[in-house]
Amino acid sequence: MTDDNATTSRPDDSLEVFKDAFRRHAAGVAIVTARDGDGAPVGFTATSLASLAAVPPLATFNMARTASSWPALSETDQVIVHLLGLRNRDLARRMAGPAAERFAGDHWTDGPNGVPLLTGVTAWMTGTVVERLPVHGNAVVVVRIGTGGVGEDDDALLYHDRRYLRPVHLDD
Amino acid sequence: MTDDNATTSRPDDSLEVFKDAFRRHAAGVAIVTARDGDGAPVGFTATSLASLAAVPPLATFNMARTASSWPALSETDQVIVHLLGLRNRDLARRMAGPAAERFAGDHWTDGPNGVPLLTGVTAWMTGTVVERLPVHGNAVVVVRIGTGGVGEDDDALLYHDRRYLRPVHLDD
Repeated sequence: MTDDNATTSRPDDSLEVFKDAFRRHAAGVAIVTARDGDGAPVGFTATSLASLAAVPPLATFNMARTASSWPALSETDQVIVHLLGLRNRDLARRMAGPAAERFAGDHWTDGPNGVPLLTGVTAWMTGTVVERLPVHGNAVVVVRIGTGGVGEDDDALLYHDRRYLRPVHLDD
Repeated sequence: MTDDNATTSRPDDSLEVFKDAFRRHAAGVAIVTARDGDGAPVGFTATSLASLAAVPPLATFNMARTASSWPALSETDQVIVHLLGLRNRDLARRMAGPAAERFAGDHWTDGPNGVPLLTGVTAWMTGTVVERLPVHGNAVVVVRIGTGGVGEDDDALLYHDRRYLRPVHLDD
């Protein structure tokens, strides 16, 4: 191994390795919404959204099975995945805050299949859950994209080392 | 639905919906490496890396089962996941280019378990594959993080709408 890589190797503590590495990783910010068995809106901010395939259009996100939204996500097949812009960072914070406050307000409407649709996002797409892979106390959720739309353009909202950021082009 | 959201809704074409939405999504850039059954190095640039859990430390990435690296990933349990900084964008391009050229050079060494370790990255971590979830022609791969290290700090490398970018803090 080169000096470059060995600098602060911590072979005995995989949690520290994991934290140190992901501290160097930046992610786009999304919000997933659904309805629970009683029809109540649920949702959460996710930094794990990834595309899986274009044909058919599939995406994945990860969540803890202790999350307030998991009971709904474990039952319903219908979600909406929202992509966030810089203007949506208060929304990102709200949907990562206390569950009871996430839908208190007029920042959402009923979208397709009655799933909560957040207003003012840069893009949204309906997802039909096609797989839920439990791994320890967590789950990987795979959705097939259906319909959707885009809002006004904006810088993509990023999350990195517990802060929100925006991307800039390298030739700027 | 509000005007905000309905602007360019395309309910009849889920592929266009998917493309439009992910065009608004920015992602951090990682490279996954492994050895195939003959011991040859394989690897690929991934924009789907996501954390799944911290305890135990788990991460996920997605790939096509038509990818040149898939035969190796379908057999080996040992990978290294590298996190990239701005200085690594040529490396990101190389590992997304022709498979035969990805390891031609001295930009890597043997890491733990003989898995190719790319030099000069901002962080790396070994992963033991604990799940491979096939979905259509693709796979979600779940790895448990073991050891690793960090390199010199750098802006996280981002990929957005087919371009590389860097993040800036909102108070900059």
